[in-house]
Amino acid sequence: MQDDSIDFYFDFTSPYGYLASERIEAIADKHGRTVTWHPILLGAVFKLSGVKPLIEVPLVGPYSLHDFTRSAREHEIPFHMPEQFPISGVAASRAFLWLAGQDRQQAAALLHALYRAYFIDGRDIGQPQVVVDEAEKLGVDRHALLAAMQDEQLKALLRTVVEAAIERGVCGSPFIIVDGEPFWGNDRLEQIDRWLETGGW
Amino acid sequence: MQDDSIDFYFDFTSPYGYLASERIEAIADKHGRTVTWHPILLGAVFKLSGVKPLIEVPLVGPYSLHDFTRSAREHEIPFHMPEQFPISGVAASRAFLWLAGQDRQQAAALLHALYRAYFIDGRDIGQPQVVVDEAEKLGVDRHALLAAMQDEQLKALLRTVVEAAIERGVCGSPFIIVDGEPFWGNDRLEQIDRWLETGGW
Repeated sequence: MQDDSIDFYFDFTSPYGYLASERIEAIADKHGRTVTWHPILLGAVFKLSGVKPLIEVPLVGPYSLHDFTRSAREHEIPFHMPEQFPISGVAASRAFLWLAGQDRQQAAALLHALYRAYFIDGRDIGQPQVVVDEAEKLGVDRHALLAAMQDEQLKALLRTVVEAAIERGVCGSPFIIVDGEPFWGNDRLEQIDRWLETGGW
Repeated sequence: MQDDSIDFYFDFTSPYGYLASERIEAIADKHGRTVTWHPILLGAVFKLSGVKPLIEVPLVGPYSLHDFTRSAREHEIPFHMPEQFPISGVAASRAFLWLAGQDRQQAAALLHALYRAYFIDGRDIGQPQVVVDEAEKLGVDRHALLAAMQDEQLKALLRTVVEAAIERGVCGSPFIIVDGEPFWGNDRLEQIDRWLETGGW
């Protein structure tokens, strides 16, 4: 992790989080930056903000569903709205954090694998077994991971990570912080690119 | 009004509506399009969607205030968050509709004048007298306008316009429809530009 790394906060069940996760590394790379991934739980954020998931909001719901697929098409990112939605991002987040404590690159690979499993193949990554299956494909010991996911310390770590995000003002997914500057939403990636290009305004 | 005109739905008290109103005509013009302005009342939309004004939402509020000014700065649009916020957009919307029934260009000029009076000079355009002052500067007969704003037919027209917007799926401000394709948010202007450039994807 570098000091000038881009902080990318995401919920594993967020369509816009998935879409942005497929593009943020290329944008960071273009400007000689890296990405630091921070899983959050939107449920905890919504509890504080009183906001409901987009697709459950009257008027906003139909627009959002239309926009998810249009946003994906623009950048040729494979996307299918999962039938099971929303689900819990807890198992995926715990697995990511455990792996990140050992190997950040492998954790990033797991993140992409889990997002794609859910938003391309419709696999229910809310299930620990599905998470472990994806991790195993990357060479992770499934028994060690399953045991870790029940560990109280790891559970507490996820709570701490989510609380720290909220403390930092994270109010949605994706939420991206560049040199202290917060950007909310997949639709801000071009703006982030301009910010990195110009040094801000 | 042309058939391929861009429909721009806006609330007179919406910061993002104001910011987008300062840029949408140049984007339309670039692609040989015109803009058709449709005032809406976010209060009516929020009543259906259950959504609260951005700045009243915990976590989201501070981010939004920061983002209003940053979004303005990026495009060098003068902006000061008004002390009186939110206010009612009813008087401004009625005046706009009345004038649009007579002279669409003058109505567009009034729209810009009212938005700037509120978001640059902090004048309370929720007050009919303030609205009429701005209209008079454009050569509008203040007595005729004041009388019209109390007319039941004009009041009914505003209700009809707002209902038609909601019927069409308008869920926020600005909400822009290009050839039947809906885009929500000031942060979608670049995407609209790409859509017009490419013919969509």
